[in-house]
Amino acid sequence: MPKQNLKTAFVNGEYLAEDKAQVSIFDRGFLFGDGIYEVIAAIDGKLIDANLHLARLDFSLAEIGMASPYSHAELIAILRELAERNQFKEGVLYMQFTRGVAPRAFNFPAEDVPTTCVAFTLPMLLVDHPKAQTGVKVISIPEQRWARRDIKSVNLLASCLGKQYASEQGAYEAIMIEDDFVTEGTSSTVYIVKQQKVIARPLSRAVLPGVTRRALLTMLETQHAVELEERKFTVDEVYSADEVFITSASNLVMPVVQIDGHTVGNGKPGELTKMLRNLYIKEAMASAI
Amino acid sequence: MPKQNLKTAFVNGEYLAEDKAQVSIFDRGFLFGDGIYEVIAAIDGKLIDANLHLARLDFSLAEIGMASPYSHAELIAILRELAERNQFKEGVLYMQFTRGVAPRAFNFPAEDVPTTCVAFTLPMLLVDHPKAQTGVKVISIPEQRWARRDIKSVNLLASCLGKQYASEQGAYEAIMIEDDFVTEGTSSTVYIVKQQKVIARPLSRAVLPGVTRRALLTMLETQHAVELEERKFTVDEVYSADEVFITSASNLVMPVVQIDGHTVGNGKPGELTKMLRNLYIKEAMASAI
Repeated sequence: MPKQNLKTAFVNGEYLAEDKAQVSIFDRGFLFGDGIYEVIAAIDGKLIDANLHLARLDFSLAEIGMASPYSHAELIAILRELAERNQFKEGVLYMQFTRGVAPRAFNFPAEDVPTTCVAFTLPMLLVDHPKAQTGVKVISIPEQRWARRDIKSVNLLASCLGKQYASEQGAYEAIMIEDDFVTEGTSSTVYIVKQQKVIARPLSRAVLPGVTRRALLTMLETQHAVELEERKFTVDEVYSADEVFITSASNLVMPVVQIDGHTVGNGKPGELTKMLRNLYIKEAMASAI
Repeated sequence: MPKQNLKTAFVNGEYLAEDKAQVSIFDRGFLFGDGIYEVIAAIDGKLIDANLHLARLDFSLAEIGMASPYSHAELIAILRELAERNQFKEGVLYMQFTRGVAPRAFNFPAEDVPTTCVAFTLPMLLVDHPKAQTGVKVISIPEQRWARRDIKSVNLLASCLGKQYASEQGAYEAIMIEDDFVTEGTSSTVYIVKQQKVIARPLSRAVLPGVTRRALLTMLETQHAVELEERKFTVDEVYSADEVFITSASNLVMPVVQIDGHTVGNGKPGELTKMLRNLYIKEAMASAI
């Protein structure tokens, strides 16, 4: 970390300067990727969709046989303390839990090994994200991840390789294709718009249950603002869609204007997408804690 | 790590007490599992199949766009120094390389970020492995890992979950099944013996190119000791095999005597398997460095 910007990170109960924030090389997060993470957006110093993130955290932990050492209230307090110490107003708060430090063995360690918990802040522009006005380019790549993508684990090598490949191609995100169908982006959910209808892939083990997806879909269902269809869609349908967008904690609702060199619509962020971005930001800020 | 057994680990050029051996929480190994590892067996203080391990290390690193900061000779020197400091004679030497420390982003960091390199020793009985005389029980589980299992990455959560499930079932190892065919064990290669012929799955992206597999097959091919067939085989073929065994750096050649409750052969380690174990150990020690 650059010394001049040293912020505070949380490591197992302590608030430490980021350059002192360390874990053992025997931590199972480091040796096996045996851990779970969450990324919570903050706007104006308030947490967005925090309860949905904490519910997903519990799900992910339970699916790999772990439990959080902290209650939801304690986690919120840790994140707020970090935000205050770092004068953090807008960006994402990251937290990660691993199965602790133990002599290296694939089997889980004894039950009395404490869970490792780390958290830090990553300031970034969300509402005024520089890409939100222009939209982003994406590319498609083959899906290569494991079978349990519904678990938000730190086994993220496939996603890193995909995102890096996208960057090298001048793209912002890579969306993954399995049996001709889009699963999701390396760190985002993908949607298409056809004839004013939003189409989103249903949840399953093939995709992460996106929190921004959940919040957006709940908003659509509650407000009856836009018609919604949950079904799988192909990459060809993305090529021919009226609008395309992605969502994630850090992207909120982000317009896609090009995929694999094909221009989406007129090459500008779609009108429905822009409306949904504004609506989502308004709702998210209104319900932020 | 228990204080009374504190050994020395290698971390980025330094030899440190294991309880001081740490990496940043911003290390990409911890945040993304963005790293590669190797496990080299040692017997009588000498490294087994070291050159094959270092060649595979180079392959894995190259496949994810990394390079080792050390030459093979330097790595061997590091492992020998560790062995000497730890009075280490038999067991495995572990080394891991990650894409270094950088602010969290899926894309690779700038090229001048140093590769993280850690190494440590894990003493264990290899030649007189307590399970070698009795053989081991295994269970089969569905294959859940990613598409590039030929890369020895630290994205090992699926393998950890599989091994833990095996332990809970009283089994030593879980072997993974994809489209009815055996891929491999969570940390071993699987073989069956039918009518005095050894059958091994061919290499592909679906399996790790096992170093012990390579050494064993080269030995079979060179010595014409036993007939070998490289083809995929089903779990039903494992149930009805004359003999079954697994190989890995820490298992060497390990007899399997039960799978999913089915007894293999007469429930004792197979004669051919025992012969291959002895032959492999003899060859491995003769060529150890």
